[in-house]
Amino acid sequence: MKKHCLLAAVAVALTFPAAAQDAEPEGPPSPGQIVAGAPASEWVSITAEDLLVMTLAPDAEGNARQVVIQLMPAPFSQGWVSNIRTFARAEWYDNISVNRVQDNYVVQWGDPNYDNPEATGETKVLPEGLKVMEEEEYTSSLFEWQDRNAERDAERQSRKATEAVLQPVETEPYPAWHSRDAYAPRVDFYSGWPAATSGYSWNQVWWPVHCYGMIGVGRNYSPDTGSGAELYTVIGHAPRHLDRNIALVGRIIEGMEHLSSLPRGKGELGFYREDEFDKRTPILSVRVASDLPAENRPAFEYLSTEGETFAKYADARANRRDPFFIAPAGGADICNIPVPVRRVSASE
Amino acid sequence: MKKHCLLAAVAVALTFPAAAQDAEPEGPPSPGQIVAGAPASEWVSITAEDLLVMTLAPDAEGNARQVVIQLMPAPFSQGWVSNIRTFARAEWYDNISVNRVQDNYVVQWGDPNYDNPEATGETKVLPEGLKVMEEEEYTSSLFEWQDRNAERDAERQSRKATEAVLQPVETEPYPAWHSRDAYAPRVDFYSGWPAATSGYSWNQVWWPVHCYGMIGVGRNYSPDTGSGAELYTVIGHAPRHLDRNIALVGRIIEGMEHLSSLPRGKGELGFYREDEFDKRTPILSVRVASDLPAENRPAFEYLSTEGETFAKYADARANRRDPFFIAPAGGADICNIPVPVRRVSASE
Repeated sequence: MKKHCLLAAVAVALTFPAAAQDAEPEGPPSPGQIVAGAPASEWVSITAEDLLVMTLAPDAEGNARQVVIQLMPAPFSQGWVSNIRTFARAEWYDNISVNRVQDNYVVQWGDPNYDNPEATGETKVLPEGLKVMEEEEYTSSLFEWQDRNAERDAERQSRKATEAVLQPVETEPYPAWHSRDAYAPRVDFYSGWPAATSGYSWNQVWWPVHCYGMIGVGRNYSPDTGSGAELYTVIGHAPRHLDRNIALVGRIIEGMEHLSSLPRGKGELGFYREDEFDKRTPILSVRVASDLPAENRPAFEYLSTEGETFAKYADARANRRDPFFIAPAGGADICNIPVPVRRVSASE
Repeated sequence: MKKHCLLAAVAVALTFPAAAQDAEPEGPPSPGQIVAGAPASEWVSITAEDLLVMTLAPDAEGNARQVVIQLMPAPFSQGWVSNIRTFARAEWYDNISVNRVQDNYVVQWGDPNYDNPEATGETKVLPEGLKVMEEEEYTSSLFEWQDRNAERDAERQSRKATEAVLQPVETEPYPAWHSRDAYAPRVDFYSGWPAATSGYSWNQVWWPVHCYGMIGVGRNYSPDTGSGAELYTVIGHAPRHLDRNIALVGRIIEGMEHLSSLPRGKGELGFYREDEFDKRTPILSVRVASDLPAENRPAFEYLSTEGETFAKYADARANRRDPFFIAPAGGADICNIPVPVRRVSASE
């Protein structure tokens, strides 16, 4: 009896999605259980135009490795996202590779012959029609959010009054986690993405944040903003100091383990050294899902971050009341509230 | 010229330790450069009694894999730390294995025959003399800190006044990052460890926090607190909701990549499924460094978290002013200010 539980140990402290806990005592639902109960109406379909399918070379045992990326919708990072579709449609990303794996930081991929005196091939010529973005575009003015958030604030206040009754008395009445972020006056979710804001002044701006699995655009020193030729994803603790300093363009929604478990590079900053270039993982192709034949087109949904279930899920992440926990925190880091995403059968 | 820089792109946003940036424009020092300038007097030697050497089976290419763990000093987790030395000295950890690798969460190791109906061997009998801890011990009352922190607060206030002049005018005057944590009223460092506190009331308590690379003790449902037979380390975004719910006992200070890059388990919660038991990494031995012959005994130092250099380093992590950055955040998550640790030649 105890046997089963010990292995389940850290276990019950789940990341989404939750698995059934057969030996679990009765108690309030876990975040995963809350998500599992979401009505179909709260799941939002991701358009195929926002999905990229990145195919890596098979692993050492010959297993296929596919990574699916969700691109960000407007107005975030729009110019860069448009460039990424341009690169993908020009098949420019085909036969590039993962050149850098830095522990607790990033996995980065691009043209291995770029800036490489030992290059065995030609540096790739960039495709036509790339946009050039200004640094101001790392943030967005979103007046729409102002009204929406005023509404949600009111709703949250009324919810908090109810929750106070559920809270164990020894829990201090922390301010809401939304305003307890080290990097921004306030953090929140918008249309399925984690974001931060400068606050609710008339000139407020918003920006997406560097959580685990988010994808950003490598760049040169300022004022360069990067084209999208060089991309990275976060494989460690959220490097939020990069927020508003680099463009974020999307996130990995399937196959993250194919990147996060790659061998770390021994060179500076995790780049593979010359004596380990064989560790570079070839990227065979990157395709926009809408360009794929219907039968190969993956389909995904995310849980609306504006719905009731997400609010309950976020609250449960901030106040773990499921049986494993003895001391709910009273808050959660925005990057510790991953937006639930699920694969569904293609509808077409 | 641009060539070199593009690859250096994300680069300059370093995790510690910093590498020299040969193509970097002039500018204020990076966090890594600040640490590199620390006087010898600010580096603190870690006693060999607090170091564990964990030897994994060689990798597929035959390369040796060694992981060095620093155990926490009193009063944090003392009973569990004492148990871990007991397990190590009984050679109980020899020939156990890594049984769970859950992406963006934890790597967990223990007796693979524990709770395994397909076990090919006997479940190991626990050694004599293990301590049993109460849940109250997840936190510590540290009156000493109260005075020390009052002093540091005063010092920080005077430093902030100076820094206000350096800050770009458009940066909002955020409250200090110490009090902008989603999980606790305040976070800080103590004797080289990241910690959180309930605040400065007369009954204040402190506890260590779950940052990347920290090591915790797997446990059963409450009121079990775990013995130390089952350990895990964090390989993703800090799961701070586990703070005060599980005992933390130390952190990995060398060889983290041997754990973080292991293949993810396909079973529930990242446990290796029966059809992939061959992916379990054998742990050949775990030894307390002080028990090793002098010539095999590793030696490490950490940068005093009470010294001037650490204060400057933490400030630079919170306000990146080195050339790559255009928008300093004004704060940093405590887990994004990793305590600098370095290997040194053994002094004996």
